[in-house]
Amino acid sequence: MPNIQTPIPEKTIERLSEYRRTLLACHRQGITHVFSHILAGMHGITAVQVRRDLMLIGFSSDTKKGYDVKVLIDFIDDILYSKNTMNVAVIGMGHLGQAITKYFNSKKLNIRITAAFDIDPAKVGTTILDIPCYHIDDFEEVASNNDISIVILSLPSSIAAQYAVPIINAGIKGVLNFTSAPLNFMQGIVVENYDITTILEKVAYFVKANEENTNQ
Amino acid sequence: MPNIQTPIPEKTIERLSEYRRTLLACHRQGITHVFSHILAGMHGITAVQVRRDLMLIGFSSDTKKGYDVKVLIDFIDDILYSKNTMNVAVIGMGHLGQAITKYFNSKKLNIRITAAFDIDPAKVGTTILDIPCYHIDDFEEVASNNDISIVILSLPSSIAAQYAVPIINAGIKGVLNFTSAPLNFMQGIVVENYDITTILEKVAYFVKANEENTNQ
Repeated sequence: MPNIQTPIPEKTIERLSEYRRTLLACHRQGITHVFSHILAGMHGITAVQVRRDLMLIGFSSDTKKGYDVKVLIDFIDDILYSKNTMNVAVIGMGHLGQAITKYFNSKKLNIRITAAFDIDPAKVGTTILDIPCYHIDDFEEVASNNDISIVILSLPSSIAAQYAVPIINAGIKGVLNFTSAPLNFMQGIVVENYDITTILEKVAYFVKANEENTNQ
Repeated sequence: MPNIQTPIPEKTIERLSEYRRTLLACHRQGITHVFSHILAGMHGITAVQVRRDLMLIGFSSDTKKGYDVKVLIDFIDDILYSKNTMNVAVIGMGHLGQAITKYFNSKKLNIRITAAFDIDPAKVGTTILDIPCYHIDDFEEVASNNDISIVILSLPSSIAAQYAVPIINAGIKGVLNFTSAPLNFMQGIVVENYDITTILEKVAYFVKANEENTNQ
C-alpha cells in the first residue's frame, strides 16, 4: 500500500495502467476511437467506472466518436510515467526473478530492470537476460552507482527482511515485494507487498464458497 | 475480482491468508498467544482492522492473553480451505509457471499444483518439478480426468484468450490469470486477473508522485 497522500486513488492508477495496455492493442489494430462502454466491457467493469476514472485525470471525449485512442494513450502516459527512465533492480534471480525480468523488459515501458542480485556463484558476475548480475552483498554500492529507484524482491521470504536496511541506505524509493514476508518502511518509500500465495488462496476460497452456494 | 456474492469481503480474505502465515511462523517459534496490536504491527495495519476482520469470522480472544495462535490458525483454516485438496493446473510452464509451481508446492497448502501444460516438445511428456507436463491441446481431457478445479495462466498474453473455451468445457471453477490480457467468464467461474506490470507501474507512479511532492 503506497504510504503517501495523492489525489488519484490507487485503484484508478491500476485501471489506467490496464486501459493503457488495451488502448495500445487497439492502436496496433488501427482502431482510432473507442467508446467508454467498449473499454469497460474489455475489462469487465462498468462504463460509469471508466468515465469516472478518466474524468478524474481530466480527460474528456468527443461523445459522438468516443475516446481518441492515441490522444488518450499519451494523456495516460503523462500521468503514469516519468519523462526519465526509471531503473529497477531485482534481488533474487531464481525462476521468479528471471520470469519477471524477461516479462518486463520485453515490454516497451520506461521502467527498466537494469541490475540483478543473487548469491549463487554460478550467476554472480554473469549476464542474465542481458542484465548484469551482482553479488547481493554489493547491493548498496551498485544500486547507488546505477541510479536504481525501485527494487523487486523475489528471494526466499525467510531472508527478505535482511535487505530492508541496505534498501534504505541505497536511497531506494519503491519496493515491490513478492515474498510472503510483509515489509514496512518509513514514510517516503513506496511498498507494495504482493504475495502470490494470498491471491491463490483467495481464488480457492471463492471457488469453495461458490460450490457451497451451488450445493445448498 | 471474484464474481459472486459472499458475506466476507475480498480484502478480509486476503488478510486472513496473510495472518495465517504469520501465525504459522509464530507457532513454529513456540509463541502460543498474540495480541491484535502485535499481529497488526507485523502487517503494517491497525489493531482495529485485525479485530474487525476476526470479529467478522466470529473469532473472539481471551483479552488478557491475546489470541490463541493454534486455535486461530485452525479457525482460519476452516474458513479458507476445503477439507479436500484442491488440484491446480498451470498453463504455460516457462519461467513464471515454474517459479509459481516451485513456490506453491513448497508450502504446506491443501491447494496443490498437480498438472502443467505447455507446447514446448522438450517439456511435454516430461515431469517438471515433480509435476507431469502435458500438451496444451489435451487440456480439456486431462483437466477433466484429474479433477482440476483451478487454472493458473502463465502463458504469453497474446494467446491467453484461446483457452477460455477449454477452461469452461473442462469445468474449471477458478482462474488466476497472470497475463496482461484480462479475461472475463460467465457467472460461476472465479477470475483473478493479476497482471504484474500493473503493480510495477503503480509503484513507479507513487515513486514519481513522492518525488514531485519533495521537489515542491
